[in-house]
Amino acid sequence: MPQRIAVIAGDGIGTEVMPEGLRVLDATARKFALELDFQTFEFGSCDYYLSHGKMLPDDWFEQLKGFDALFYGAVGWPDTVPDHISLWGSLLQFRRRFDQYINLRPCKLMPGIKSPLAGRAPGDIDFYVVRENTEGEYSSVGGKMFEGTEREVIIQETIMTRTGVDRVLKYAFELAQSRPRKKLTSATKSNGISITMPYWDERVETMAANYPEVNVDKFHIDILTANFVLHPDWFDVVVGSNLFGDILSDLGPACTGTIGIAPSANINPQGHFPSLFEPVHGSAPDIAGKGIANPIGQIWSGAMMLEHLGHQAAADAIVSAIEAVLEEGNPAVLTPDIGGQGNTQTLGRAITEQV
Amino acid sequence: MPQRIAVIAGDGIGTEVMPEGLRVLDATARKFALELDFQTFEFGSCDYYLSHGKMLPDDWFEQLKGFDALFYGAVGWPDTVPDHISLWGSLLQFRRRFDQYINLRPCKLMPGIKSPLAGRAPGDIDFYVVRENTEGEYSSVGGKMFEGTEREVIIQETIMTRTGVDRVLKYAFELAQSRPRKKLTSATKSNGISITMPYWDERVETMAANYPEVNVDKFHIDILTANFVLHPDWFDVVVGSNLFGDILSDLGPACTGTIGIAPSANINPQGHFPSLFEPVHGSAPDIAGKGIANPIGQIWSGAMMLEHLGHQAAADAIVSAIEAVLEEGNPAVLTPDIGGQGNTQTLGRAITEQV
Ligand SMILES: CC(C)[C@H](C(=O)O)[C@@H](O)C(=O)O
Ligand SMILES: CC(C)[C@H](C(=O)O)[C@@H](O)C(=O)O
Repeated sequence: MPQRIAVIAGDGIGTEVMPEGLRVLDATARKFALELDFQTFEFGSCDYYLSHGKMLPDDWFEQLKGFDALFYGAVGWPDTVPDHISLWGSLLQFRRRFDQYINLRPCKLMPGIKSPLAGRAPGDIDFYVVRENTEGEYSSVGGKMFEGTEREVIIQETIMTRTGVDRVLKYAFELAQSRPRKKLTSATKSNGISITMPYWDERVETMAANYPEVNVDKFHIDILTANFVLHPDWFDVVVGSNLFGDILSDLGPACTGTIGIAPSANINPQGHFPSLFEPVHGSAPDIAGKGIANPIGQIWSGAMMLEHLGHQAAADAIVSAIEAVLEEGNPAVLTPDIGGQGNTQTLGRAITEQV
Repeated sequence: MPQRIAVIAGDGIGTEVMPEGLRVLDATARKFALELDFQTFEFGSCDYYLSHGKMLPDDWFEQLKGFDALFYGAVGWPDTVPDHISLWGSLLQFRRRFDQYINLRPCKLMPGIKSPLAGRAPGDIDFYVVRENTEGEYSSVGGKMFEGTEREVIIQETIMTRTGVDRVLKYAFELAQSRPRKKLTSATKSNGISITMPYWDERVETMAANYPEVNVDKFHIDILTANFVLHPDWFDVVVGSNLFGDILSDLGPACTGTIGIAPSANINPQGHFPSLFEPVHGSAPDIAGKGIANPIGQIWSGAMMLEHLGHQAAADAIVSAIEAVLEEGNPAVLTPDIGGQGNTQTLGRAITEQV
C-alpha cells in the first residue's frame, strides 16, 4: 500500500522550493521503488486566509489525520496577515493537534558551505537539537488587565507537564544513546526562571538514571548560546524546551552557515498522527517571487521524511546527493545565497540527477 | 562630599578579580582627583549563606540603599548552594528592590582579543544590549499541581507591565538617539509567544513615534541570535525583555570573544537607589582558587560605574588603559584565557600602571 503524503506549500518561497522537494522525492521513489502518493492542499497559507478568513478549513483535522506524513513549505506573510495569526492558525495547530511533540533539527557543517565561525571544517560540527514542540513557553493562556491604561499588566503562562517534559527527554536520551558519542546537553535557566526550569532540571536528572551510558551535562541558555559559537564541537544531542529549542535550532544552523538550507522534522514518535517535515527557513518575503530561493532545506526535509517513513537508504541517498552537489560547487547550478549564479530549479535539478 | 561605593566580592573568582578592580579604581581616583569611599560587605555570597542560612541579612536594604553605587564581583557556588537560591537571594533582589530596571552591556571587538567569527576586526562590531531587568520571564509567580504524580503540571507566569516595558524602551531609544548610527533593534517572538510579545511589539511601535530620527527594526529571538553570528555589524542598540536580553548579552560578547572580560551595569536611571556594576562572567568554580581569572570584566565594570557617577573622562581612561594593555599583548602580563602566562595580578597591575 502506498504511503500517503499531504503537500502544503504555504507562502512566499515555500511555493518555489516545494516543486524541487517533490522532484527529488519522485526521483528517489523511482530509484528505490517506494510507493509514495502525494496530495496537494491549498490551505495553510496567507492567500487562503485572505479569501477564507481563516488559515485552515474547519475539517482540516479530519482531512489530514489519515496521512502518513505532511510535507510543508513555509508559512507567513506579515504584510497582509500578522504572524501570530498565520502561525497559530496553521503550523502551531498541526504541531499541537497531531501531537508532534518532537522538533528535530540537524546542525552540521556541509561541504562547500561557508561557516561564519573561524577555523571550522566539515566533521567538526555535527549535532542535533531536540526541541519540545507542544507546550512550555508557547502557551495560549494569559491575558491583559487595566488595558489601555498606565496600570496595564500582561500575563502569559509557561506550562510544563510531566508527560510533556518526560517524553521529549526520553526521545533525546534515546537519540543520544544511539549515537557514537552518547552525549546529551540540557538547556536550562534554573538560576533565573525559578519555577519551571528547576523542574526541567529535576526531570533530566531522573531520566538520566535510566541511561547510564549517556554522558549528560547542562548549561543555562545564555551561556549555552555563547558555547554554540565558542565550542560547537562540544555538542552531540542538545535538548530544550519549546522556546529554548526554537532559539538553539536557529542559532545552531547559523553557526554552521546552513540556516538557509537546514531541514526540520516535527515528529509524533508513536505515529498516531502524521509527522510534519519543513525547511527551517521561512517564507522569505524579501526574495520571494525571484526564483532564486535555495531548495536544499525543502529537499533535505524530504530526506528526513523518508527516514521517518522507514526508508533509511533512500534518505541517505538524498543527503549524499546534496553533499555531492555542494562539494562539486558548480556556480552555474548553485543559488546566489551560496555563491552561485543559478536558481531554485537549476539546483533542484542537479540534486535530482545526482540521486 | 565623597561618593560612597559598596563592595561585594561574592563567590569564586569574584573574590580574586575584585582587588584588581579596586586597584584600578584607586589609581584612577587619584589621577582624576575623585573622592570615592569604598565599604566592603561579606554578605551576598554562598559562604555567607552557609554560616547564616540566608544570602543577605534582614536589613540589607537599609544598609545599602544610601550608597551611590554597588560594585559586585560574582555570585554562585552550585556545589553547595543551588543557583536559584543564591541568585534569587542576592543579585536578583538588588535588581528588583533597587529597581535597577536597565541591564546594559557593551559588545565590542577589542584589540588583541580573538573573535570566534571569521574575518572580523576591531571597529566591525560595537553595539549595546539593553535588557529589561526587573520583570517579564523572571517572575516568581506560579506553582505546581498534582505534584509527584503523572498528572504533574508546572506553571510560571511571564508578567509585563506598561510601566516596565515603556521605561526600558525609552532608555534604549534615547541611547540609540545619542549614537551616530541611531539604530534600534527590538528582540521579539510575537509569532510564537502570542500574548506578551505582541504587546511588546505594540509598545515599541508606540515609543518609536517619539523618536523619528531613530531607525527601528525587529527580529524574532531565534533568527536574531542567528544574525548576531551572521551579521553582528548590523547592530547598534538591541533591546530585549529580561530573558531575551539575558541571552543576547551573553551571545553578543561571545561573538566578540569578550565573554570572559565583558562588563555590565544594572542601572536605576533616576538614581533613587544605587546602581550595580558587575562583570558578565560568573564565579567560575572551574578556575576559582588558581589566581588566573581575567580581571578585565571587573575593571571595565568599574569604568561603567565611574561613567554612571558622572566621571566620563576617568571612565574613558580606564577603557583606554585596557585597550592599550591588550594591544601591547605582553604574554608575561596577560592571563591564560587570552593567551598569556601571567595571572590576575599581573594583568590588574599592568592596567593600573597604564592609567
Ligand atoms: C546568574 C543569573 C541569574 C543572571 C541572569 O540571568 O540574570 C546572569 O545570567 C546575568 O545575566 O546576570
Ligand atoms: C514561525 C514560528 C512560530 C516557529 C516557531 O517559533 O516555532 C519557527 O520559528 C520554527 O522554529 O518553526
